[in-house]
Amino acid sequence: MNQQYPSILLEKAIDEFSKLPGIGRKTATRLVLHLLRQDREAVDAFGNAIVTLKHHVKYCTVCHNISDTEICRICANPKRDTSTICVVESIRDVMAVEATGQFHGLYHVLGGVISPMDGVGPSDLQIDSLVRRVLEENVKEIIFALSSTMEGDTTGFYIYRKLEKHPVKLSMIARGIAIGDELEYADEVTLGRSIVNRTPFNGTAS
Amino acid sequence: MNQQYPSILLEKAIDEFSKLPGIGRKTATRLVLHLLRQDREAVDAFGNAIVTLKHHVKYCTVCHNISDTEICRICANPKRDTSTICVVESIRDVMAVEATGQFHGLYHVLGGVISPMDGVGPSDLQIDSLVRRVLEENVKEIIFALSSTMEGDTTGFYIYRKLEKHPVKLSMIARGIAIGDELEYADEVTLGRSIVNRTPFNGTAS
Repeated sequence: MNQQYPSILLEKAIDEFSKLPGIGRKTATRLVLHLLRQDREAVDAFGNAIVTLKHHVKYCTVCHNISDTEICRICANPKRDTSTICVVESIRDVMAVEATGQFHGLYHVLGGVISPMDGVGPSDLQIDSLVRRVLEENVKEIIFALSSTMEGDTTGFYIYRKLEKHPVKLSMIARGIAIGDELEYADEVTLGRSIVNRTPFNGTAS
Repeated sequence: MNQQYPSILLEKAIDEFSKLPGIGRKTATRLVLHLLRQDREAVDAFGNAIVTLKHHVKYCTVCHNISDTEICRICANPKRDTSTICVVESIRDVMAVEATGQFHGLYHVLGGVISPMDGVGPSDLQIDSLVRRVLEENVKEIIFALSSTMEGDTTGFYIYRKLEKHPVKLSMIARGIAIGDELEYADEVTLGRSIVNRTPFNGTAS
């Protein structure tokens, strides 16, 4: 036992918190001592929320998004456009795209991107099930909303090769200067690409 | 249910994490999804560590520090100097002073400082038990290691008034320029005080 900690139970709780990404031991200590000052009910609610989530979590059998039901709320929504599928890396990306309110189709969560360095190959991702959806359902467009990284590009290309013979339109989210960014601080690659992929201008920016 | 979240269980877990100090909803989401990617055992260990701590936590009956036993490891250590008591606000402060390795006496954890704005009065703190320790035990020196704030000063003064008639030496940790600080950036009050409370210089800074 580290002499620094007055209690083994306290040390264990701090150990667990400091395993979280971006949480160092000082922050972990602060969080644990904060929880210790709360009611027993509040602490139980905290501990149970994450354990219950892990034990009862389901993933949508269609799009692999997190869900409380077999088919997720988005896939089950009759108002969504079933002919368009937005391909994303993670659940967080679904939440990010949903938050924009600009997409009304369905999703497909790959569960990561192809990354040989991390030992992640195509078979570790939900790529086969995406191809199956395209073959079996009436999908007209696939929109790739993947990270603008080597791994994201590789993954997009891999799926492109799998689908290029099918009559489905493939597109990619626009890459360019972020809204609010100053040109001076944009990197050359992004700026160059935003010139090549310029869009018609009708007097307003949107 | 917020439309942004694909699962009620996920939302609940994120809600709980975002109640923690300094953790916003974005960070909470990142932490919960990180835990979701771990083994079930790891998540159980995380959830149980904090719940177990809360259910089984004990506080030392002498110094009120967190402890696994009736009397904490510091109070029970025969090598510690029982004639000196360092008065601190919280458990975290005990850990901070212990980490310096410069103090070999005992502690007294007040559990806060007097703060009428927050509804914390002397009776909410472990002040009476400190006075009792001074009366009943052979205490020669009380060192105040309280925050250098109005509340910390008020608390020190309140205890000073309670103890001034007892034959116990009262002292306060030194306040001045922090090690590594440049004078230019020190505030006037601290700098002024560090001049008034200057210490003898024998050629080296320590």
